[in-house]
Order: sequence, then structure tokens, then C-alpha cells
Amino acid sequence: MPTVSDIRKSLSSTPPGFEEIAGAAKAQLKALDVFFTAQMPQFEPQMRKSVTYCLKNRGKRLRPLLVFFCGAKKSAKVDEALVRLAATIELVHLATLVHDDVMDEADLRHGTSTLNALSGPTIAVLLGDSLFAHALELAADFDSESICKPLTRAARRVCAGEVWQTTERGNHELSVKQYFDIIDMKTAELFHISCLLGGRVGGYKEDACQAFGEFGRRLGRAYQIYDDLDDILGKESAVGKTLGTDLLSGKYTLPTLLLLKALSPKKRQALLSQIKNNRVDTKALGAAIRENGILEKIVDYFRRELSAARKTLAAHEQLFPAENLGKMTDFVAAQFEKFLEKKRG
Amino acid sequence: MPTVSDIRKSLSSTPPGFEEIAGAAKAQLKALDVFFTAQMPQFEPQMRKSVTYCLKNRGKRLRPLLVFFCGAKKSAKVDEALVRLAATIELVHLATLVHDDVMDEADLRHGTSTLNALSGPTIAVLLGDSLFAHALELAADFDSESICKPLTRAARRVCAGEVWQTTERGNHELSVKQYFDIIDMKTAELFHISCLLGGRVGGYKEDACQAFGEFGRRLGRAYQIYDDLDDILGKESAVGKTLGTDLLSGKYTLPTLLLLKALSPKKRQALLSQIKNNRVDTKALGAAIRENGILEKIVDYFRRELSAARKTLAAHEQLFPAENLGKMTDFVAAQFEKFLEKKRG
Repeated sequence: MPTVSDIRKSLSSTPPGFEEIAGAAKAQLKALDVFFTAQMPQFEPQMRKSVTYCLKNRGKRLRPLLVFFCGAKKSAKVDEALVRLAATIELVHLATLVHDDVMDEADLRHGTSTLNALSGPTIAVLLGDSLFAHALELAADFDSESICKPLTRAARRVCAGEVWQTTERGNHELSVKQYFDIIDMKTAELFHISCLLGGRVGGYKEDACQAFGEFGRRLGRAYQIYDDLDDILGKESAVGKTLGTDLLSGKYTLPTLLLLKALSPKKRQALLSQIKNNRVDTKALGAAIRENGILEKIVDYFRRELSAARKTLAAHEQLFPAENLGKMTDFVAAQFEKFLEKKRG
Repeated sequence: MPTVSDIRKSLSSTPPGFEEIAGAAKAQLKALDVFFTAQMPQFEPQMRKSVTYCLKNRGKRLRPLLVFFCGAKKSAKVDEALVRLAATIELVHLATLVHDDVMDEADLRHGTSTLNALSGPTIAVLLGDSLFAHALELAADFDSESICKPLTRAARRVCAGEVWQTTERGNHELSVKQYFDIIDMKTAELFHISCLLGGRVGGYKEDACQAFGEFGRRLGRAYQIYDDLDDILGKESAVGKTLGTDLLSGKYTLPTLLLLKALSPKKRQALLSQIKNNRVDTKALGAAIRENGILEKIVDYFRRELSAARKTLAAHEQLFPAENLGKMTDFVAAQFEKFLEKKRG
């Protein structure tokens, strides 16, 4: 039985209102936990401690939720194939997080220590590999052409997106188009595949599945725009992520890219030299983002993606998944507005 | 057309006599290179340079060779399915090498710079992931139960073996049994799966495939015993690997484990303190291994594995693969004897 401190801990990592959204797939999310626990004996004894740690320090399980929403029929019955698909995608996601933390030398995620901090980069690299291999072992149970291959291809695209972002480190002249191409690969791809394959496993027609997939991609883009803004304006205690990780590691994301374009040559040079010398005044940076109209531009980008996501659902409103997916966009929008309210001060 | 220096370079990484062995699968190995080149457009543009680099700085392609040998029928015709299987296993192997080099912070492999040294650990982690994902995309074309799943399971076992070895770093009391359990997972597993699945894709009966698999496992163990001895007694210029990487990173392998058991408490303590302080006199260590009968013990272990490998073939002598596999053991044995001759002085 969970203790009060367990519950508090789990609540602190889930934003308010999220329980309601997730509630629509409560039984499935529970089945996912059971499924993960049942997988444990399949990991070699040397791995189990680390695997358990990773699965316990879970985030919001957004991708599984999308799988469940897109694959659901009216009945509340738990579909084992959907649970397996959700587990597969979540394991790929966890593997990339573990490797991200190695590469970023990050010590915190979701407010708790990363495996990288606890066990060192060597174990973390290998654990990521094991999670990845296990994910693909699970994937092998699905039809090769319609599920398994799209999944492995998506995994590769996520890596390629990360490689691209890495090779662009320090490039403050990245275009907005390149920024979106990168987040399409590194983030939106798994959202996309969660929805597309969720629909397929759920037995929906291919045109609906494609629409779900596009919905996922747009939601993923919106989510990353939000995350990148949060990385600049957020605070460590609230987000459970080391503050400004991106800039520290030379990753220029939408807020800084837009700001640099908006500044006068002199101010641009001053900011670039601050960044280069690791002396960014985060408060001044936040102020500049507000004062130069960057925040509003980002709000536009964010809303554009969410509205595109909603539009893809319009032709499939009669299908069961549409309602839950619609609620998901409302939730993300509400979270973002709340964040903005705080940040606009 | 290759230049003289190209040929010299390629010869320096292939031991004498190896061409003859590999010659029996010449057409297949060529088809494998063609296959790899044809895969390149499937990698995202951001990855291609690194992937090409990894594929060019190839080792001896031992695992593909085992696939070709075990899957071959009398005809010299190239079997596309075997080529695909060989590529899949080689990509898993390359992925683990790339990650190994990150974890060991190794700068050299096969006498040339590692990707880790050239592009940094971040790219190397991600490239390993991409190679892995691509391997499993290729695997998805095979039958799920008989090929794809055993492959993903093997990949996970390789990682688990590495994790185990890592968690045992600094443990100079590792037993010989534990040492063998670790090398079974981290090395012999891919040799095993190359032979087992090669036989299956080649259409051999399951009892023969199992024998091939056991052959591979034994050959893999012998190979790792040789490699670990070489890591202690070898020289950088001859092996293309940083000297004594294992001891430097706290990995106790068969030679040091046996030596520590054989030494008097006083001498043991002295050696342990040298290792701990990174002040091992490699010449003195080599001499101690010779003088305390450790070299002969290792020779025994090596021969025992090779002879077990040969024995598994005995019941299948009438099958086409037996001859080439037999030659492979002869070659590895001859290489080892040549190495010993040099090392015995």
C-alpha cells in the first residue's frame, strides 16, 4: 500500500487536472504497470534493479495514454495488445531519456536522481540499450509491416533527431524550420507513432489512423515548444529538471533563436558572449524574451500546432477516440495558459 | 581501385591465413558490403557520415562469416536472407563496440580512431542507438519466433553481460565461473546466435542448428580468452587497441584473476596496490603470468573450449558447414599458438 509520502511524491510530478484525463484510461494504465512488473523476470538479474528504478521514476506516461486513447473502442475492456504496444513505445522513450541524461550529464529528472547520477554513465548507456532491446523484443510480437517496422523506424528517427540537434550545438543561426524539423524527429515522432499504431492495433480504418498519427505529431510539436520555453523560463524545483539545461549544453531552441533574431546586433553579440561564457543572467534573459515580443510569438506557434491537432480530428469526430484526444489538447492548452499566466507575472 | 597503402592497411588488420578462411565466403562477404552500402539512404542524412565511418573501419567480420558458414549449402550462390541476417548481427555487434568505446573512453580500435574520439561520446551514444534500431528493423523481416526474438534476446543478453562486468569492476575476487558467465553473455552470445540462426535461415534441421549454436558459443569463449590474454600481454601497435584497457578500467579478466589466486598474500597485495594506483609494470606483470604457470593454465582453458567446439561438430560432419567451421577452429588455434610463441619468447 502506498504511504502518504508516496502519494505526495506521485502527485508532485503530475500536473493538476491530469488525473482526470488519465482517468479515462485508468484500467489500461494499471494494466501497463502490471505488464511492466511481469516483464521483470525477463531482464537478467544484473539489470533488474536499474530497470525497476527507471520504471518507478516514471513521468506522466503520455505516450501510453495516447496509445490507449487512439486504440480504444467504446468498451472499457483492457486490450492486451494495446497494453503491449504502449509498453513497447514507453520503453523506447525511457531508453532515450536514459541516454539523454548521460549525454546531458543530467542529475535530475522528474525531481529525482537520474540513473546517470546514481550508477554512472556506463551503466546508464547499457541500461538504455537493454530497455531498447527489450522494447524491440516486445515489438516482434506484432505484425511486421504495419507495426514492428514503423516502430523501429521511429526509434531510428528519434536518434537521428538527437544527432542532428547535437551536431547543431552552438549554432545560434539555426532557422525556425530546422528547429521544427529537429523536434519533429526527436519528440513528435514518438507521439505520432503512439497515435498511428494505437489506432491500427485498435482496428480503426487506415485514414483514421493516419489522422490520429498527424494529431500526435502536432501535439508532440506543441508539447516540445512548451518544454523548450519551460527550460528557459522555468525553475528547477517546479519542473524537476536542471534549469536551463539546453542553453548550458549549447542547444539553441525556439525562445533563444527568436530572441537572437529580434535583438540589435550589439545586444545579440552581448547575449551570445554571455551564453558562450556560461554567464547567462536567466532573469534578464526571461525579461528580454517578454519585452521583445518573443513570448507572444511562441504562444502563436504553440496555439497553431494545437489547433492543427484539433483540426485533424474534425473528420473523425464520430469515432470514440476523438473525445479523449480533444480533452488531451484542452488539458495541454490549459497547462500552457497557467504557465503563461505565472510567467507573464 | 585500392592503393598500395589501402591494401597494406587492410592487411595489417587481418591476420595471415585469414583471407583463406574468409575466401570460402568471399562472394557472401562482398554481398554484405553491397548490402550495407544499399542501406545507407535509409539512414537519415545526419547519420550517414558516422555510419559510413563505422562500417568502413570494420574488423574481421567474424560473425557474418559464421552466419555464412552455418547457413551455406553446397552451392556457392549468395543467399539474400543470409546476407540480411549477417548484416543484422554485425550491426548489433558494431553498436555494442561503439558504446563500448564510449564507456571505456577508448581512442583506438582496429588501429584507427574510434568514433568516440572523433565525434565525442554524445554522437557515439546516439550512433550506437541508431545502428541498433536499424539492426532490429532488418530483423523484423524474419520470422518472429525463430529469428527475430532470439536476436533481440541475444542483444539484451550482451548488454546484461556488459552491465555485469561493469558492476564487477574492481572486484579482484571474481571467480573463474563468474568470469565465464560474463564472457558467455557479452561475447559468446553473438557467436552463438550467428551460428544458430545462420543454420536456421540456411534451412538445416533444428538439432544441427543447436549444434552450430553450441559450436559458436565455445568458439566465442575461446576467442574472448585469447582477447583477454592479448589485452594483458599484447602491444598497442600490433593489436590496434589501447594497451591494458581492461586493467586500467578495473576489469579483472582470466590472466589477472588466476595470477592473483596464485600469488603469495604479500605479492598479491603488492600487485593489487599497483593496479589500484594505476602503476602496473606491464613487463613485470607479463613475467609473473609466465613464471607462475598462468600462461599454461590459460592455454588449457583456451584449448578446452576449442576442442569442445570441434566435438559439437562431430555428429554433423556430413553437413556442408562442418568443413568450414572446422577450418575456422584450426585458424583460431594457429593464431593463438603463433601469439604464444612470441609471448613465451
